[in-house]
Amino acid sequence: MTTDTPTSPARRRRVAVLGATGAVGQSFVRLLANHPWFELAELAASERSAGKSYAEAARWIGGDPLPASVAGMQVLPCDPGAITADIVFSALDSSAAEDAEPAFARAGKTVLTNAKNYRMDPDVPLVIAEVNPQHLSILDAQRKARGWSGAIVANGNCAAIVASLPLAPIHERFGITKVVTMTMQAVSGAGYPGVPSLDILGNVIPYIKDEEPKIEVEMQKFLGSVSGGTIQHAGFLVSAHANRVPVEHGHTVCMSIELESRVEAAEVERAIAEWRGAEEARGLPSSPERALLLSDQPDQPQPRRQVNTGHGMTVVVGRVRADPIFTVKLVAMGHNVIRGAAGASVLNAELMVRRGLLGDR
Amino acid sequence: MTTDTPTSPARRRRVAVLGATGAVGQSFVRLLANHPWFELAELAASERSAGKSYAEAARWIGGDPLPASVAGMQVLPCDPGAITADIVFSALDSSAAEDAEPAFARAGKTVLTNAKNYRMDPDVPLVIAEVNPQHLSILDAQRKARGWSGAIVANGNCAAIVASLPLAPIHERFGITKVVTMTMQAVSGAGYPGVPSLDILGNVIPYIKDEEPKIEVEMQKFLGSVSGGTIQHAGFLVSAHANRVPVEHGHTVCMSIELESRVEAAEVERAIAEWRGAEEARGLPSSPERALLLSDQPDQPQPRRQVNTGHGMTVVVGRVRADPIFTVKLVAMGHNVIRGAAGASVLNAELMVRRGLLGDR
Amino acid sequence: MTTDTPTSPARRRRVAVLGATGAVGQSFVRLLANHPWFELAELAASERSAGKSYAEAARWIGGDPLPASVAGMQVLPCDPGAITADIVFSALDSSAAEDAEPAFARAGKTVLTNAKNYRMDPDVPLVIAEVNPQHLSILDAQRKARGWSGAIVANGNCAAIVASLPLAPIHERFGITKVVTMTMQAVSGAGYPGVPSLDILGNVIPYIKDEEPKIEVEMQKFLGSVSGGTIQHAGFLVSAHANRVPVEHGHTVCMSIELESRVEAAEVERAIAEWRGAEEARGLPSSPERALLLSDQPDQPQPRRQVNTGHGMTVVVGRVRADPIFTVKLVAMGHNVIRGAAGASVLNAELMVRRGLLGDR
Amino acid sequence: MTTDTPTSPARRRRVAVLGATGAVGQSFVRLLANHPWFELAELAASERSAGKSYAEAARWIGGDPLPASVAGMQVLPCDPGAITADIVFSALDSSAAEDAEPAFARAGKTVLTNAKNYRMDPDVPLVIAEVNPQHLSILDAQRKARGWSGAIVANGNCAAIVASLPLAPIHERFGITKVVTMTMQAVSGAGYPGVPSLDILGNVIPYIKDEEPKIEVEMQKFLGSVSGGTIQHAGFLVSAHANRVPVEHGHTVCMSIELESRVEAAEVERAIAEWRGAEEARGLPSSPERALLLSDQPDQPQPRRQVNTGHGMTVVVGRVRADPIFTVKLVAMGHNVIRGAAGASVLNAELMVRRGLLGDR
Repeated sequence: MTTDTPTSPARRRRVAVLGATGAVGQSFVRLLANHPWFELAELAASERSAGKSYAEAARWIGGDPLPASVAGMQVLPCDPGAITADIVFSALDSSAAEDAEPAFARAGKTVLTNAKNYRMDPDVPLVIAEVNPQHLSILDAQRKARGWSGAIVANGNCAAIVASLPLAPIHERFGITKVVTMTMQAVSGAGYPGVPSLDILGNVIPYIKDEEPKIEVEMQKFLGSVSGGTIQHAGFLVSAHANRVPVEHGHTVCMSIELESRVEAAEVERAIAEWRGAEEARGLPSSPERALLLSDQPDQPQPRRQVNTGHGMTVVVGRVRADPIFTVKLVAMGHNVIRGAAGASVLNAELMVRRGLLGDR
Repeated sequence: MTTDTPTSPARRRRVAVLGATGAVGQSFVRLLANHPWFELAELAASERSAGKSYAEAARWIGGDPLPASVAGMQVLPCDPGAITADIVFSALDSSAAEDAEPAFARAGKTVLTNAKNYRMDPDVPLVIAEVNPQHLSILDAQRKARGWSGAIVANGNCAAIVASLPLAPIHERFGITKVVTMTMQAVSGAGYPGVPSLDILGNVIPYIKDEEPKIEVEMQKFLGSVSGGTIQHAGFLVSAHANRVPVEHGHTVCMSIELESRVEAAEVERAIAEWRGAEEARGLPSSPERALLLSDQPDQPQPRRQVNTGHGMTVVVGRVRADPIFTVKLVAMGHNVIRGAAGASVLNAELMVRRGLLGDR
Repeated sequence: MTTDTPTSPARRRRVAVLGATGAVGQSFVRLLANHPWFELAELAASERSAGKSYAEAARWIGGDPLPASVAGMQVLPCDPGAITADIVFSALDSSAAEDAEPAFARAGKTVLTNAKNYRMDPDVPLVIAEVNPQHLSILDAQRKARGWSGAIVANGNCAAIVASLPLAPIHERFGITKVVTMTMQAVSGAGYPGVPSLDILGNVIPYIKDEEPKIEVEMQKFLGSVSGGTIQHAGFLVSAHANRVPVEHGHTVCMSIELESRVEAAEVERAIAEWRGAEEARGLPSSPERALLLSDQPDQPQPRRQVNTGHGMTVVVGRVRADPIFTVKLVAMGHNVIRGAAGASVLNAELMVRRGLLGDR
Repeated sequence: MTTDTPTSPARRRRVAVLGATGAVGQSFVRLLANHPWFELAELAASERSAGKSYAEAARWIGGDPLPASVAGMQVLPCDPGAITADIVFSALDSSAAEDAEPAFARAGKTVLTNAKNYRMDPDVPLVIAEVNPQHLSILDAQRKARGWSGAIVANGNCAAIVASLPLAPIHERFGITKVVTMTMQAVSGAGYPGVPSLDILGNVIPYIKDEEPKIEVEMQKFLGSVSGGTIQHAGFLVSAHANRVPVEHGHTVCMSIELESRVEAAEVERAIAEWRGAEEARGLPSSPERALLLSDQPDQPQPRRQVNTGHGMTVVVGRVRADPIFTVKLVAMGHNVIRGAAGASVLNAELMVRRGLLGDR
């Protein structure tokens, strides 16, 4: 991540991670351990882990060593009373998130969540910083409706994020009417221990529980607009096919896209190549140099080779070509744990700091 | 393969395999070594191999031992003058097939080919035995037009075969208008040595050279009709996305299908479950009990687990469900080397024997 | 499995499987569903599964369909009072086996166990049918010492079995003094769900908990002798290195072996090639044609290609060559779930039937 | 790589890479494209590539982009007359190296080679910079004997390097008498295209052509001493078992080691932990912070997770424990393309610059 940030706030804000021991939780720890704007002050996890040191509680699954500054931190329970930080990154699974996340919001915390529970609530912004930062404007309505002093901000399903990023400039310029989306998703998307090796070695599983409806509806929400304090979903239709493949990190997505009118593939390519995303999302500590990178190689993007582009925050796009049924087809690939989960939340939090949505503390 | 075949011809016909040392060639050897109707009489390969014993010339890549009856056979050159058999299975690559296959046909041989060269010629039948056996009727026109005493019969791209089989009953009953097809193809589809492990271990390659146009057009030809001695391609549109995945054998295909009118997924499921394919293709030595098997498991078909269903001749279909854009979507999976190549050719030859198209010798 | 067995007993004996829902339990179900000598009468598993149908309780992980005769059987609790069969195959994990197995033996059942708990007890025979059937003779002592009417017979760690089989003829003819053993073990050895894909995809884990001491001592027990009603461990030294590799089934073992005197590699090869194992273990329903198969290919044995040799009951041996430090080195590979677990137990039970150790027929 | 090097020479030396298009050649390009001491001036490859731009000639196989400074360089023939640089890194395969490398040495070039051809010649130093830099002293004898103004310096087989590094402190302190070595080698060790995916997906190949004798004898040479202008091989015996596993990068090596006298595993562990290697090899641009890193995790080292430790120049060692036959056993893992090939050569060249063996600056 870029550490030289012209807009750096005066002092580092204290943050907590909920569900800190799992795969996404560990990714949060990695991204926040030396963050220029945030101080990783507290780690929380399930009852089973609470009270242990983080080094004891978490089975660290990266190749990098567990950051020394974090190893000795005591794991706290996922309870608003136990957490003093006001900014809370949640990697809780949906059963734990169901009650915990509203409790934190009620207690005045801003919860940046990866759980699926509240994503589709009309008053919960589902945000990709470069794509729809304006959706954050509904937080006032959320607070009012729910009587919260805090808030919940969601960042969506990992495959939906990877698919939506390249659609943003296309929808903006040409208007999308239909998208058939077929994913080949990495095993890290299922967390740890996640997918048993006996199920996936040398295999493809053409099914991920509950995934396709999430992809279909979240893509419409990400690319929707705000009006009158509520989010209008984009009007295009989506059909998703979700598959698990024996890849460690990186979701690959094939898409056939129908546009409002006839457009050449080269124009779509140019729209992707030129896009920089929302101006307010640029130059943040976690912003990649480019949110979208257009590859000119015929056989790219490839997850094993390109997943770390832009420190895992860049979605690589390739094979933009005419579609015999719709208008264009293309392939997109991005890091599901970083761009699709923890990194997305952190970038959203940075955006909220810049917008003054996290207080001026 | 079933060896008890009520319609068994009076005596075994002598057959040859061209390109016998490669991956598909080896599959032919395996399927023909103890075939009830065919006697594997001759093996031919490139100059480099000619003159050697088959055991020396071929790097046998299966787990099963090289059939003893074949090990000592001398490899012949791919030259019609060197081959006495009248039925010739060709596993030649396209550069070798270009001249050799017409030369064999001119010399009176019936060539059952896996090469791409002549598949799309209007007078060359492209046949899946259970789907379009009536396409063989254009052979007369082929012989007349080309002045051949022999013939070329093709069996198509492996992914196109796997995709077309489940579409056959759907098109027959409901009429298909559009299909978006995304494949996840096994490495054996690229032959041997084929895909370098450095390229595919833990990776997905969203590109296979020249594959997508083949899939798109061959699906239309397979499901086309014969009229006036020529084949009319099916009128539906196809858009294909071809991907390589780290799977040994078995191509998995996701499809979104638009039908002529609104149809429930359950009706499509029933059409697949009930289908038995052309009557004349049943009960042949290589016929599987069912050409299509409908799985009721939510996470099937899976290549590593089900690729050998029906001795590799059955395409397993699952996840038939409504499509938010088109009418239905589903997943199909079949063995690319057997159902998609060598086994398909052998079944076609058996069909031709039954039809009396291979002489009454 | 061979079904034509000259020594077939007059009637099929009723058998039960404990721990029937796990990976080894499923392998038992597969091997016993149509067994000529045994009738699979009862399935037992943990509290969680008891009362459900087997189809509901077990997540069937093979590519083959769950045998119809078994799908509807009700899962029973692992309690001797609930089981009427006198022959009990145990796939329980060690925590469940600790109390349950002696309870079954006390209740008069013969328990053929895969658990590690009692393997090293001096009065428990640890048997590979072809290698040390004579160890069964200590069962009298076991019954007397423990006051059991039943018995426990163990079949050892999967890697130890694969390693010990090729050592049997070598030790018999030449006398082994030292063995360094290095394993590359398949993921199915850890059961299901077992090894997380995130841990093993594209990786090697040079460690398997508690595995090395088991291999070291069990090899000595398998190749030991019986004298005075007790088993004398073989006197050779063993050093084991256990590794997990991304292979589905099949443990591969490299060994450097020191013999009592100088012996040519060719003589060792001949001893392996000629060996047929104990005469009483031949021709049983689960006996492979050969317990050891010597490959003459320079790059064999290989798990993915050869694991099913002899229906998974044959250990394939290759690369027998001189060792610069000891006498010879070689590579052995066998199916860890079949030869190394369920198949080994079934073969042991067949041997006991033949020996009249399972009551009169 | 560290770029802040106190001993940096006054000017960058021009260097060439032979065999620049292959896998090891590409690694050289990566390491040399921005090297503080060397200027990558010339790239040479086979006839087929000569004359093309490097971007055209090389199929770039990394995930990182091809360095822009290199993409447009014209590939030259592997001919001393075509190369002006005096320092030549060779990634030629052995058939090309046979004639080319002596020709370059005769023409006054210093050739740092990865080919196997001259490694075992008594007057060719086989060097791991931290282990045996003193072996470079035989270059005078080499030049005299061969009448060369240039020289050949070799860096050994990749598995032998990874195995020898942890043995260096052990041999130095305790004296090694015997080593049994079992390797699990990554596919990148076979170059590109190298190992076909059909051979290695979900498989282990317990054989690598010609590898075991290389490992056995090179380990003795690396740890040998110089006396009277010649190298005395270390006197310990080595037995090697070489295996290929489905891992991208990183060779893992299990070793059972006999020492001259009884030593506790903890003392061996300490020797490894404390070792820093030859002083003159420290602080060079390619020197890792530590050549050996001792892991305290029970299941490490692991290639996928730790292969890039020290930018691929650190060998990670774990599981040091008592051996029931010899004295200790352990596991070592290192990056075969960097520490085992290109990085090793570059470090050797840096060492030679510091020693003044590459002309004045």
